Amino acid sequence: MAPVRPSFRLLRPPFFRQNYGRRGLLRVDFFTPRSVGQTARHMSDVPPKSPNSGRSGFGKSTVWAPKTRLFIGIPFIGLLIYSMATGDKPERLDGPSMAEKDALIKRESGITDQSPMRLRMEEFIKQHQKQIVAELEGIDGKRFHIDTWDRPQGGGGISCVLQEGNVFEKAGVNTSVVYGRLPRPAILKMRADHKALDPDVDSLPFFAAGLSLVLHPSNPMAPTVHLNYRYFETADEAGNTNAWWYGGGSDLTPSYLFDEDAIHFHNTIKAACEKHDKSYYPRFKKWCDEYFNNKHRGETRGVGGIFFDDLDETEKDQEQLFAFVQDCLSAFLPSYVPIIKRRKDLPFTEKEKQWQQIRRGRYVEFNLVHDRGTAFGLNTPGSRVESILMSLPLTARWQYMHSPEKGSREERLVDVLKNPREWV
Amino acid sequence: MAPVRPSFRLLRPPFFRQNYGRRGLLRVDFFTPRSVGQTARHMSDVPPKSPNSGRSGFGKSTVWAPKTRLFIGIPFIGLLIYSMATGDKPERLDGPSMAEKDALIKRESGITDQSPMRLRMEEFIKQHQKQIVAELEGIDGKRFHIDTWDRPQGGGGISCVLQEGNVFEKAGVNTSVVYGRLPRPAILKMRADHKALDPDVDSLPFFAAGLSLVLHPSNPMAPTVHLNYRYFETADEAGNTNAWWYGGGSDLTPSYLFDEDAIHFHNTIKAACEKHDKSYYPRFKKWCDEYFNNKHRGETRGVGGIFFDDLDETEKDQEQLFAFVQDCLSAFLPSYVPIIKRRKDLPFTEKEKQWQQIRRGRYVEFNLVHDRGTAFGLNTPGSRVESILMSLPLTARWQYMHSPEKGSREERLVDVLKNPREWV
Repeated sequence: MAPVRPSFRLLRPPFFRQNYGRRGLLRVDFFTPRSVGQTARHMSDVPPKSPNSGRSGFGKSTVWAPKTRLFIGIPFIGLLIYSMATGDKPERLDGPSMAEKDALIKRESGITDQSPMRLRMEEFIKQHQKQIVAELEGIDGKRFHIDTWDRPQGGGGISCVLQEGNVFEKAGVNTSVVYGRLPRPAILKMRADHKALDPDVDSLPFFAAGLSLVLHPSNPMAPTVHLNYRYFETADEAGNTNAWWYGGGSDLTPSYLFDEDAIHFHNTIKAACEKHDKSYYPRFKKWCDEYFNNKHRGETRGVGGIFFDDLDETEKDQEQLFAFVQDCLSAFLPSYVPIIKRRKDLPFTEKEKQWQQIRRGRYVEFNLVHDRGTAFGLNTPGSRVESILMSLPLTARWQYMHSPEKGSREERLVDVLKNPREWV
Repeated sequence: MAPVRPSFRLLRPPFFRQNYGRRGLLRVDFFTPRSVGQTARHMSDVPPKSPNSGRSGFGKSTVWAPKTRLFIGIPFIGLLIYSMATGDKPERLDGPSMAEKDALIKRESGITDQSPMRLRMEEFIKQHQKQIVAELEGIDGKRFHIDTWDRPQGGGGISCVLQEGNVFEKAGVNTSVVYGRLPRPAILKMRADHKALDPDVDSLPFFAAGLSLVLHPSNPMAPTVHLNYRYFETADEAGNTNAWWYGGGSDLTPSYLFDEDAIHFHNTIKAACEKHDKSYYPRFKKWCDEYFNNKHRGETRGVGGIFFDDLDETEKDQEQLFAFVQDCLSAFLPSYVPIIKRRKDLPFTEKEKQWQQIRRGRYVEFNLVHDRGTAFGLNTPGSRVESILMSLPLTARWQYMHSPEKGSREERLVDVLKNPREWV
């Protein structure tokens, strides 16, 4: 697979969608095209060694031989920080101080519970990316293709994609870490939700880190699953954390509904939520049904899960929220692996495969029409389109006036999507 | 094929995209869900008879037996009048006077060159829809499925779709006619381009009529083609025409580029343009390359054609512009039929079919991410999703990091899409 070489010749000022909820969109300097180093490897390459931790070296591209250099932006950043806002001209300040500080901490003392949260989150998502990829490779029998990037300004990305595997038609597990500067208009808009932001500066250093995954199994009896957890913070010029918040969730999208799968998925997530707050599961389950909604069809994308955003000190303290996000992400494999294992080899008909393809079309509709992160990424010049659209299925179908037969399993699914259920 | 029954239970206030160029978007009363009559037939049904014209009866659903009744909106209206603007709450006035007046004219005197332009445009697009459908059925050997609607307030729609034919994987040829009322905020925004609009009223009656078609052939050597021509006008309360304008164009999207096809297509369109104005072809060719552009990939959707909007009395007088639009629409069959005839039976490989599927994915990306009409339609509660998404291909593919081989035909196509050519 040769790398895509995006051209910027025809890029025009982006058409920003507005009214995307609480904050809208943001353009910042790190989205502009620039040369960054990239490496690609397979899991079969010599595993990277980290000086500080056996787990944290997964994303260190310095250990892996660079094979290509591309003019690209940052993968999955759209999905990562879509919750910020402004359509104004990006500022061109470079603020490496936070990144340099962090590099020094990593080199000198490694990551401990005393390290800044951003480093702990980065380590946590990279460790989980590695674990999830390994587990999925075990299930599929085929290896992920891995692309990594470093950003000269600090941070980078790791895209792991498995395509046309034995179990997964397409599976992507990505992490992104970004150090950048937040321009004033974005700061002012974000203050509505985060009073800790200093309104009297022209720009602020910020950090964002997140893990995103989408798995589209081949077997129409096996559901698609999506997950994203992210952490965002701003700092003052000295590198001290200012505002911060978490967002994320995971949701299940079956073509054929097995109630026991939906119940297991929700139960597992609910248990993770309830270790932290009894209100979390019902609140975030509702938020998920509302967000992952193909409004133009009056259908949710799937049978839901949880979704939340902007969880900051007004919700709980940072340690408590980090522990919550850790438990949610750690619940992913237990929530999905039993499902994929019992569905991946079920028999199916050509007609059932076709229904799956129609449902994949609905998935594409949600991601391209309604998803804020995808819209943000695609409308941002220089973003890495291949990473953003990794979430799309390998194949999809749009059949004019297709309607499930009366009393069929297909009709039952649509009924459930039109009338979201309480699964637990 | 059973009709889709859209549910409005989950509809939420739509998220309007803004900054869509000169005008943005509009919400008006006729988009709200309401009961309208619908009929469905095949070309094999007894052809309708019109009291006034042998040609104009194609869309008269009164002649055809109604088979179903749906709670639906107006098909293709998003594509038809996306050039209007406001995000404000729709007004709920009903203004049937223009529609009643027109019904009387049709009944009493038939449509002549002295009839109001709206009736001449309606007759013209319906006649051409019939002619195009007949010609395409001749090429494919399979018949179109036809759905028609009447709106109680006046106007209606005819959707003709051929799916999984011998030549066309999916082909849709739609006409829409709408009588409605334009709310004040929309009037004020539209005045920027059309000074004839009265700024001192709360709402104005308006009329819109258009023909839209998208043909996706099965053979990867045969290009997809899209066409849309539309007419819009507002009137005073007495039914006298106030502001009016035309918009439209047609463009070609090959998966495998045959220069002679692109040259023939552009030449035919250019000839139609040059009967009216030497500046039209170069102006509207450029507008087309700029509009049908997957900005996030730096690629045009295809090899272009022409695109224009807002052509009103500041451009030429109404008769001249109607003659121009007539010639453009009449040029469609000569521009495309020779191409489909020489490509539809060419041999192709599995790999070439797959490349077509990847290109279809790009078509979906344009239509769902960038196309103003589609966005407008999908974000409008009660719109007929099946008619709006008729433009999508039957199947599409997203392959991570797919890149054409060096020196291949696939690479050459992408080069041309990144650097639009002058074909004539």
